[in-house]
Amino acid sequence: MSDAAFDKIAILGIGLLGSSIAHAVNAYGGAKHVALWDVSDDVRDRARRVLGDGVTDSGRAAVSDADCVILCTPVGVFSDVTQNIAEALKPGAILTDVGSVKAIPAADMTAHCPDGVHVIPGHPIAGTEQSGPEAGFASLFQDAWHILTPVHAATDEYGAALERLVSFWKRLGAKVETMDPVRHDRVLAITSHLPHLIAYNIVSTAYDMESVEQGEVVKYSAGGFRDFTRIAASDPVMWRDVFLNNKDAVLETLGRFSEDLAALQRAIRWGDGETLMKEFSRARGIRAAIIDAGLDTAEADFGRRHIDPNSKE
Amino acid sequence: MSDAAFDKIAILGIGLLGSSIAHAVNAYGGAKHVALWDVSDDVRDRARRVLGDGVTDSGRAAVSDADCVILCTPVGVFSDVTQNIAEALKPGAILTDVGSVKAIPAADMTAHCPDGVHVIPGHPIAGTEQSGPEAGFASLFQDAWHILTPVHAATDEYGAALERLVSFWKRLGAKVETMDPVRHDRVLAITSHLPHLIAYNIVSTAYDMESVEQGEVVKYSAGGFRDFTRIAASDPVMWRDVFLNNKDAVLETLGRFSEDLAALQRAIRWGDGETLMKEFSRARGIRAAIIDAGLDTAEADFGRRHIDPNSKE
Repeated sequence: MSDAAFDKIAILGIGLLGSSIAHAVNAYGGAKHVALWDVSDDVRDRARRVLGDGVTDSGRAAVSDADCVILCTPVGVFSDVTQNIAEALKPGAILTDVGSVKAIPAADMTAHCPDGVHVIPGHPIAGTEQSGPEAGFASLFQDAWHILTPVHAATDEYGAALERLVSFWKRLGAKVETMDPVRHDRVLAITSHLPHLIAYNIVSTAYDMESVEQGEVVKYSAGGFRDFTRIAASDPVMWRDVFLNNKDAVLETLGRFSEDLAALQRAIRWGDGETLMKEFSRARGIRAAIIDAGLDTAEADFGRRHIDPNSKE
Repeated sequence: MSDAAFDKIAILGIGLLGSSIAHAVNAYGGAKHVALWDVSDDVRDRARRVLGDGVTDSGRAAVSDADCVILCTPVGVFSDVTQNIAEALKPGAILTDVGSVKAIPAADMTAHCPDGVHVIPGHPIAGTEQSGPEAGFASLFQDAWHILTPVHAATDEYGAALERLVSFWKRLGAKVETMDPVRHDRVLAITSHLPHLIAYNIVSTAYDMESVEQGEVVKYSAGGFRDFTRIAASDPVMWRDVFLNNKDAVLETLGRFSEDLAALQRAIRWGDGETLMKEFSRARGIRAAIIDAGLDTAEADFGRRHIDPNSKE
């Protein structure tokens, strides 16, 4: 076992991701000490039950002497949180995060961060639809991508800090990439933000259909709808902040989505089976690429199908 | 073990569902003999390898002497298939199906079905994104709903046929409901047809985004997109026919979806976090109802998350 990347890390915000990082450090190393803090009294109490006494009563206490501070709150409060802890940050420390948007939140962190603290924004492509400290688990980051978006030209010191952060995430099992923050936000708008928006929207549409009972929607949800409800069960505050902070890329992607949908709608209205066939067929190519890349298994759905009935037995 | 519901059943179309019915009858009973046929030489050859010598070379041979004939082809060919086998159907036999749309396909079956054969359309709410005879498995229908949409006022004889068909599906593990076909098509438009259309569309939009490499879309697909590609991997011919045969209900549902999406788009553009929060929050209610009803497990996503990394080891 190699040396830990950090002596002490601080995790601010103890939801699924904050809690999972703490569990992962306990399981795989990466830091000798972990301090955690959350703005909610209730969350701190619950976090103490699952993560023990590393939970502190103030953000400043948590970050004091920390070599690496990880913001795990919704991105909408990065500005406030950074302001609140700025004075307590150790010179030479790293300030990173796990937010799903990078450009604006990174600017928020940088604006309030004292000189001599290295801002290195990050985003693990890992998660479940669960929220809260109880949802965290150590293996969440295993084999998942972790994207870092370094904010300025590398000095030697910044480069060394980046290397330590990379080794930390590798220790937790992640595969690390660096990327331009604007490009990150554009790529994630289509691979993550739009899918979540669409899932929330379809659940909302179903909820309002007075011609269909909600009981029936629930009962026959295995026909496809169920998968959308799972995605739409994700934390609403986190996702509100994602959309407010990645407006341009999401609106651009959403505009294309709506145009494409209008074309399918027209094909259905006019009975144009050829267009439907063409569009439906090419989806299989991307699916095959995802399976080939080892990013999902052809058996995943069978696995799930088999889970459902057994869950009652 | 009670008596089989039928002496001989015939399965026309040997995809995921046709193959699964044959496997399920082998595993759980329900019929003493199973004959299968598919229009494709290739599919028949492959079906023989996984299902043995019940595969016949003509639809008429398959249905000859069958007490129950189950159409498992895309719904767009129900009219042709029924015409083709009509003369060979045994008086008093049941003609049923597993199509995802009921009103129009049921009319297609009825129009070409000889008197004395009982048309009782059906739809199992079960499936995976896999296709072809190799994808079938015996437990697919266990604890899944099976909806029957009886087509006319019950005579004693029709009622008795319905009872036999219900006991057949129960034997395969399904929970059976009856429903009006038009209502079925409206409910499934929101719980199944729209989710599939949306999934196909989002994959298509991603495919066309020249500002993002397809490699990146694949690489970071775990952020939500992956679940859509799974749904969009379903058989394109089957889904083309669903949309062409449930036009009105799908267009009505799609209209509502687009209105709701426009409202979310507006909220994002104007930074209206309150509206986003309100819409995102209520999705959790439907999710909770699905878990309470035992139709999915809170652990399903954890299960999947854990499958991926292990699949490489």
